[in-house]
Amino acid sequence: MPVNLPLPVADQLMPIAGVRIGVVQAGIRKAGRKDVTLLLIDPGASVGGVFTQNRFCAAPVQVCREHLASGHGVRAIVINTGNANAGTGEDGLMRARATCIAVARALEVAPEQVLPLSTGVIMEPLPHQRIIDAVPRAIEQAHEAAWFDAAQGIMTTDTVPKAYSAQAHVQGKSVCVTGISKGAGMIRPNMATMLGFIATDAAIAPELMRDLAHELAEGSFNRVTVDGDTSTNDSFLVIATGQAGHPLISDWQQPGAAALKHALLDVARQLAQAIVRDGEGATKFITVRVEGGRDAAECRQVAYAIAHSPLVKTAFYASDPNLGRILAAVGYAGISDLDQTGIDLYLDDVHVARQGGRHPDYREEDGQRVMKQSEITVRVVLGRGSASDTVWTCDFSHDYVSINADYRS
Amino acid sequence: MPVNLPLPVADQLMPIAGVRIGVVQAGIRKAGRKDVTLLLIDPGASVGGVFTQNRFCAAPVQVCREHLASGHGVRAIVINTGNANAGTGEDGLMRARATCIAVARALEVAPEQVLPLSTGVIMEPLPHQRIIDAVPRAIEQAHEAAWFDAAQGIMTTDTVPKAYSAQAHVQGKSVCVTGISKGAGMIRPNMATMLGFIATDAAIAPELMRDLAHELAEGSFNRVTVDGDTSTNDSFLVIATGQAGHPLISDWQQPGAAALKHALLDVARQLAQAIVRDGEGATKFITVRVEGGRDAAECRQVAYAIAHSPLVKTAFYASDPNLGRILAAVGYAGISDLDQTGIDLYLDDVHVARQGGRHPDYREEDGQRVMKQSEITVRVVLGRGSASDTVWTCDFSHDYVSINADYRS
Repeated sequence: MPVNLPLPVADQLMPIAGVRIGVVQAGIRKAGRKDVTLLLIDPGASVGGVFTQNRFCAAPVQVCREHLASGHGVRAIVINTGNANAGTGEDGLMRARATCIAVARALEVAPEQVLPLSTGVIMEPLPHQRIIDAVPRAIEQAHEAAWFDAAQGIMTTDTVPKAYSAQAHVQGKSVCVTGISKGAGMIRPNMATMLGFIATDAAIAPELMRDLAHELAEGSFNRVTVDGDTSTNDSFLVIATGQAGHPLISDWQQPGAAALKHALLDVARQLAQAIVRDGEGATKFITVRVEGGRDAAECRQVAYAIAHSPLVKTAFYASDPNLGRILAAVGYAGISDLDQTGIDLYLDDVHVARQGGRHPDYREEDGQRVMKQSEITVRVVLGRGSASDTVWTCDFSHDYVSINADYRS
Repeated sequence: MPVNLPLPVADQLMPIAGVRIGVVQAGIRKAGRKDVTLLLIDPGASVGGVFTQNRFCAAPVQVCREHLASGHGVRAIVINTGNANAGTGEDGLMRARATCIAVARALEVAPEQVLPLSTGVIMEPLPHQRIIDAVPRAIEQAHEAAWFDAAQGIMTTDTVPKAYSAQAHVQGKSVCVTGISKGAGMIRPNMATMLGFIATDAAIAPELMRDLAHELAEGSFNRVTVDGDTSTNDSFLVIATGQAGHPLISDWQQPGAAALKHALLDVARQLAQAIVRDGEGATKFITVRVEGGRDAAECRQVAYAIAHSPLVKTAFYASDPNLGRILAAVGYAGISDLDQTGIDLYLDDVHVARQGGRHPDYREEDGQRVMKQSEITVRVVLGRGSASDTVWTCDFSHDYVSINADYRS
């Protein structure tokens, strides 16, 4: 049961002019499951992406990087679930490339104009011929109003599809932004999560796209964690089709550009937080905010130490205000000159610790009240500067163990 | 149920001449439990210690550091369970000091000759008067053959007491080494674990003791992890009473000194591994060995990434050879120039991955066979040098969540 994450309403997801989507069954791992999603992109779109920093990055991630760097306009994105094509060596690269060649042939474009993405089990050969066989059907049924189907098509251990739309006005034109994401375990993205896609009909210069993808990921997917395991396949792509009709944005100082970026970040953050809300076994959504640091990096380091601590996460699961576990995580976060007597801890509005010790007015029942909520903000004030950063995570339950002990069986 | 860790046999634990132990009930947190252990040390002993690197180190750890640095010979160590006296600020320091003063007065020694250690819940005031009231009884009943009682006296979520003895011959004299340890959760020591004690009747120069404690911890307690949470209270003390009758060791090149160090390391490693075998919810004991690195530090970094991954640990729990999860952990361990095509993975004798991909001869049933064992060695060969390092850990089960969701209730 995801935490406060309703099923997206298909009618509220805005189609993006210039992107058509086909979702079909290919029998990658299990029969009777829609496991191949094809995004067809009109000529002239700008695409930017960021990918996992895991050194064991999957074959499709390597091919995506090459194809994006080639400078050819992206015309198709082919996504399969059921198999990550990671830990598969040279053979895996060959299979990812063969998939791109087949899609390119069907669309009469170059193979470099196709991006392959895979998610699922690691270290098993990708049955790429099944993807290739499914491509003609996916092309045939592709249409613009299929974002809900796409969000479903890319799910693995997710319990609900994740999709979100927003709008902005750019120089008198209304532009739409729609995104989808998936992921519930092996989630501690470092660049982006497997998988996030955001499309907009705004017109954005191609040279801005890579930095844009990076900036959006930094404010969203790169601030969430479920279990601290950075996937081999994390990928986040941003597509701007340019069909909204406003003048090209080639500088973020242009009129309306800030509003557009705000809408893009809004969608990215909703999608990233949706991954945590649907985190494997999650029963609570936790915001960890660290303030008063010398720089944002050390705030982030402390926030992740808290967000990754199994002891902190099981205490949240139990609604047990065993808050010394949070102080312990602050202490081992790796800030070598941290002075514990400068540290304050809050749980929502409750002041738990002051100057490194229990606050004299803190009462256990106040901590208990907050811990029982389904949404909790942990706020740590380091007292050594004015920087801050925020990370989103979930608790750690029996179901996390069950899901991951049973995943392949 | 600990993994292949039998109850120590009290008769096989060798007394150490010059160390007497009293274990009593003080009602620190729960009634009817022996929760205060007092070690009385004869004059002339050498003592060295290493402590947690958690910046939120507990009050007793701060006092131990001060007292050891004072250069006065240590005459007593007072240990309580039930309360960690951590996250307690100035008030906690005052309570730790008051405990030392009371013990010192009873023994007619200086307060700096007393080391206080605490373990238990964090951020609650230490009921130090209860410890002080219990000291006379502990002194009265102290005797040399009480190591088993001491191992029981320092337990918290441990399911069995942990103790081990070894012998060595130094210049014609037989010397004894006996140690005890505790800990099952919040275990990823960084210096030492809360709590380890090793005593020997060997004669070792005081100026060697600190480095000795550090070296022993590096080969034992600093290579184990249960949940990656570094405690606020980790402490490891080595006591050499000098009563065995051989000439003082003031240089490790002296005859017999190497044999002594070997016995000390043997005890330290048995105690450290015992903590993992009794790790919270553990059903398997895992040795993670990383070879072929440029230096030991990068091997250790990779080994800990594997040993801390919740996905790897739940796969071990399930006996599921979902070994791509291990490759993923290798990939995100933080070695930025790691080449995945140089990496091999073994599970005991089974060659699972070669050059970053699945080994052509690898069969799932072979992986399955090893995964079902209660003791498993994961061996990763990085293929970029000749350094290696080893870390010991356990799997991650439903019981870990249960234990930590219920710990305080």
